[in-house]
Amino acid sequence: MTGTWRDQGEAKRQSILKLIPSKWQLKDPVLPATELRDVTGDHIRQFLTAREIEITETDAVDIVSRTTTGVWSSLEVTEAFCHRAALAHQLVSCLHEIFFDAAIEDAKQKDEYFAKHKAPMGPLHGLPVSLKDQFHVKGIETTMGYVGWINTFEGKPNDPRYKTEESELVRELRSLGAVLYCKTSVPSTLMAGETINNIIGYTWNPKNRLLSCGGSSGGEAALIALRGSPGGFGTDIGGSVRIPSAFCGLYGLRPSAGRIPYQGAANSMDGQGTILSVIGPLAPTARSLTLLFKAVLQQKPWLHDPLAFELPWRDDIVEDTKALIARSQTDPSTLCFGLMRYDGSCPVHPPIARGLDIVERTLQRLGCRVIEWKPPSHSEAVELARRIFDMDGGFDLKHHLDLSGETKAAQVIVSEGGTELKASEIAALNVTKREFQKKYIDYWSSTAELTGTGRPVDAFLCPAAPHAAVIPAQYKYVGYSVFVNLLDYTSISLPVTFADQKIDVRPADAQGDDTGNIQWDYDAETYHGAPVGIQLVGRRFSEEKMLTLAEYLGGEIAQDAN
Amino acid sequence: MTGTWRDQGEAKRQSILKLIPSKWQLKDPVLPATELRDVTGDHIRQFLTAREIEITETDAVDIVSRTTTGVWSSLEVTEAFCHRAALAHQLVSCLHEIFFDAAIEDAKQKDEYFAKHKAPMGPLHGLPVSLKDQFHVKGIETTMGYVGWINTFEGKPNDPRYKTEESELVRELRSLGAVLYCKTSVPSTLMAGETINNIIGYTWNPKNRLLSCGGSSGGEAALIALRGSPGGFGTDIGGSVRIPSAFCGLYGLRPSAGRIPYQGAANSMDGQGTILSVIGPLAPTARSLTLLFKAVLQQKPWLHDPLAFELPWRDDIVEDTKALIARSQTDPSTLCFGLMRYDGSCPVHPPIARGLDIVERTLQRLGCRVIEWKPPSHSEAVELARRIFDMDGGFDLKHHLDLSGETKAAQVIVSEGGTELKASEIAALNVTKREFQKKYIDYWSSTAELTGTGRPVDAFLCPAAPHAAVIPAQYKYVGYSVFVNLLDYTSISLPVTFADQKIDVRPADAQGDDTGNIQWDYDAETYHGAPVGIQLVGRRFSEEKMLTLAEYLGGEIAQDAN
Repeated sequence: MTGTWRDQGEAKRQSILKLIPSKWQLKDPVLPATELRDVTGDHIRQFLTAREIEITETDAVDIVSRTTTGVWSSLEVTEAFCHRAALAHQLVSCLHEIFFDAAIEDAKQKDEYFAKHKAPMGPLHGLPVSLKDQFHVKGIETTMGYVGWINTFEGKPNDPRYKTEESELVRELRSLGAVLYCKTSVPSTLMAGETINNIIGYTWNPKNRLLSCGGSSGGEAALIALRGSPGGFGTDIGGSVRIPSAFCGLYGLRPSAGRIPYQGAANSMDGQGTILSVIGPLAPTARSLTLLFKAVLQQKPWLHDPLAFELPWRDDIVEDTKALIARSQTDPSTLCFGLMRYDGSCPVHPPIARGLDIVERTLQRLGCRVIEWKPPSHSEAVELARRIFDMDGGFDLKHHLDLSGETKAAQVIVSEGGTELKASEIAALNVTKREFQKKYIDYWSSTAELTGTGRPVDAFLCPAAPHAAVIPAQYKYVGYSVFVNLLDYTSISLPVTFADQKIDVRPADAQGDDTGNIQWDYDAETYHGAPVGIQLVGRRFSEEKMLTLAEYLGGEIAQDAN
Repeated sequence: MTGTWRDQGEAKRQSILKLIPSKWQLKDPVLPATELRDVTGDHIRQFLTAREIEITETDAVDIVSRTTTGVWSSLEVTEAFCHRAALAHQLVSCLHEIFFDAAIEDAKQKDEYFAKHKAPMGPLHGLPVSLKDQFHVKGIETTMGYVGWINTFEGKPNDPRYKTEESELVRELRSLGAVLYCKTSVPSTLMAGETINNIIGYTWNPKNRLLSCGGSSGGEAALIALRGSPGGFGTDIGGSVRIPSAFCGLYGLRPSAGRIPYQGAANSMDGQGTILSVIGPLAPTARSLTLLFKAVLQQKPWLHDPLAFELPWRDDIVEDTKALIARSQTDPSTLCFGLMRYDGSCPVHPPIARGLDIVERTLQRLGCRVIEWKPPSHSEAVELARRIFDMDGGFDLKHHLDLSGETKAAQVIVSEGGTELKASEIAALNVTKREFQKKYIDYWSSTAELTGTGRPVDAFLCPAAPHAAVIPAQYKYVGYSVFVNLLDYTSISLPVTFADQKIDVRPADAQGDDTGNIQWDYDAETYHGAPVGIQLVGRRFSEEKMLTLAEYLGGEIAQDAN
């Protein structure tokens, strides 16, 4: 590599753009965000054929119902998504790697297979799936946003694994019949709620290009929000699936650790064992998350990933949950949810507060009980997570930034140059974390006395972030997402509504707070149009139940919000 | 506390002995081991009534079949085991805490409950269960062998939890109807394959009092081998359930982490998160392990322990395994086992080698296939485990020893005064460990090409230790047990036979080795009569399959060995 890190990043940025076929390159420069805020919907549709729009606005479940039965060809579906992904990247800068040619070749082979066998290769036959740029795909580079990773394997030059490795999840997706075609942008270090790096710059929110798409799985969310992908996989160590999902109006699942295989994926602070990063899907519909999650479990990841658990998809839990839902429609003592509007530290912006009102009204309309969620101190959880993320004193991120000498974005929540914790200090931290988890598990169980259902709450709802998307460099408080990682709970972001400057006015009595006076950052005009998402949180390993509830509640909330 | 640590330890030792009712105190001093090697069987029976012998030599499954149906009273069963446990302690020094009065009171209440409700309190109604001295029981001290823990809560004086806390497993055992009556000896620090501390001294092997009972769950194994308990719970971080089980002729289960709740139990190096200590049952029969393990899972520990997994007992796996066993009797391509006689580092003593021969012959007689187990380097696993156990440089054990100033036993495998690893070093170690686990999981899968069953091996068999029990202070190599902890695999110790000085002769060509020239320590006369146990190892979370196989194979091996 020659040149400064700026040159190297810029060269990589240009090389990505060059992989977009000229027929899909935008003729005119994209207008500035001040003139063109929302590039979803009609804006991006203008560049597509009616057929491409039909395909790309079909959700993953309906796509596979057609591609696994020969109604749609894999090739046509793949080309449509490649085209739309190319447009998405030009609009909001969301891709790190483009491999449309390989995808089209792959799609052709799938069509040949189907023609020959009259059967699909697997449950995801012909479905394009996008991947956060932590997954290794054969023939393709992984930079994870680091300039120093260009032309290397995870920063190691001349490593034989460069472009030859494939992450376990990638192998499983191929076995399931999925078509891989692009990798999406991340903040370098991954430890940020926005997506910014020295290669592709800043990934913008497609619904409001004045704002962030969220992070760290920001490119995934931006791409999917523009329907450049029907669904993909991100990772979440502090909110990195749920934040961008909420910011971009999508569903996003943060499963408990060990369900989706992390084996062979690149990571930050790999080997930090106190709060594990987990992989989860993002998609425009809840049932698409279920499709992707369930399909991966069919591959028995525990036979290939030593940290994955032998916990197949549990249909009985889905059936039990559906039975509860059915019964709740006549018996109001069947389902009960906790609702947490405020975590005791950071008051949320008006659009989020309104989103929670909508959710509460929906629950009441559905005959569900709602109790106030008053858990053990979340500020304790947030402080613990901070100490855990800072445990290596920034050793890992400094190492990777120093490979090229590039700068660290202000958004990164881990500091450089801190003191590394010692083994005995980490052990003490692990004990404190476990004690917090124990308090929380006991609180959850104790709600059985309050719900009137004879059981503890079925889940609770709370903000995923204090704001609807965020003005760049104003993400000050990740407490609403990170407590879930500390607890290793299952959580799903649900889209609720959109910020509306006419309704969502900062109250005259808005207070300052200890988390950055976030209320003063609220600007109704700037936030206008940003998606409002909230979080549905379940106990550990409750993916089957949460996905079933998310599909039910998400559909009902959408009716009330629109 | 006053006096030296020696005085304090001796005072505690005397206070334990004083809790034995005078009617159960031995009239004559116990003969030295050179004159009275084996105190099991006829020796201990001479102090018991025929009825007490009948009760205490009944296994846990048959006991609960009587106590849950009112055939035997809980009181009679409890008194019989209290009596026999009192004798056991006087013979081999295996108890840290005695609470027979509370147990008898508890048993009476259970009988009253049964008389009133004509039903048991739970599946373990009236079953005495012994506990390693890591579990907190209300009203009872926990010293874990540390002099500095006497009169404290885990070394903290004036702590309100002293004698008021109860570990989660203890709570669950009570809910299941079990009767708790004693806590058993451990080596202080827990990090030793023998059981020695400055309170009760050395716990001897009941079958051969020249040798160790094993450790760290040594008191459990010694007590159960003398039938002073029908079953109990130990813990295993490097072999601490399987070693004493093998040394004392018992079955012992090391489940994967997260199945039996550790919540609220005392531990060494608590919070070390790379190799987790796990709890497992020990008993004279395999089906007793199943009874205890399955009963605990019925309590849904995952609702009470944040580190427990939501994985209920899986009857379908038991049924599938039984079907394989049935089919294997006519079809030799149904079951296949790996067999590892030597791990590449430490040749085993002649009795163990013969034990493996017996096992192989049994497998062949049963029509099972046997392949040589040639896994990734176990010496790499052993070295990794050493680095992990030494990660805090002895910080934790030094802290607890220093509370009283007591000495550390030579048997402890963790050193004091080392250097603590830093966060980035621990992260690197975690990655190396995961990579080793990945190699092993892939090796396991690769055996599908060799087994002839169409599947990888069903399990593999190997030594649990290089020797049958061990001469005190000669436990030099824990490699045969600790690799399982690194992998987090399910493993069960199975009894096979007994060392026999006439047959088990050191071969003339015995070689030295890098692990302490263990062959030269073999003394046929001294080892004569020591139990020979081996290990059945399954994949992670394979408890249902391994317990089913252990019951089958254990019974068949016993036929061939006798």
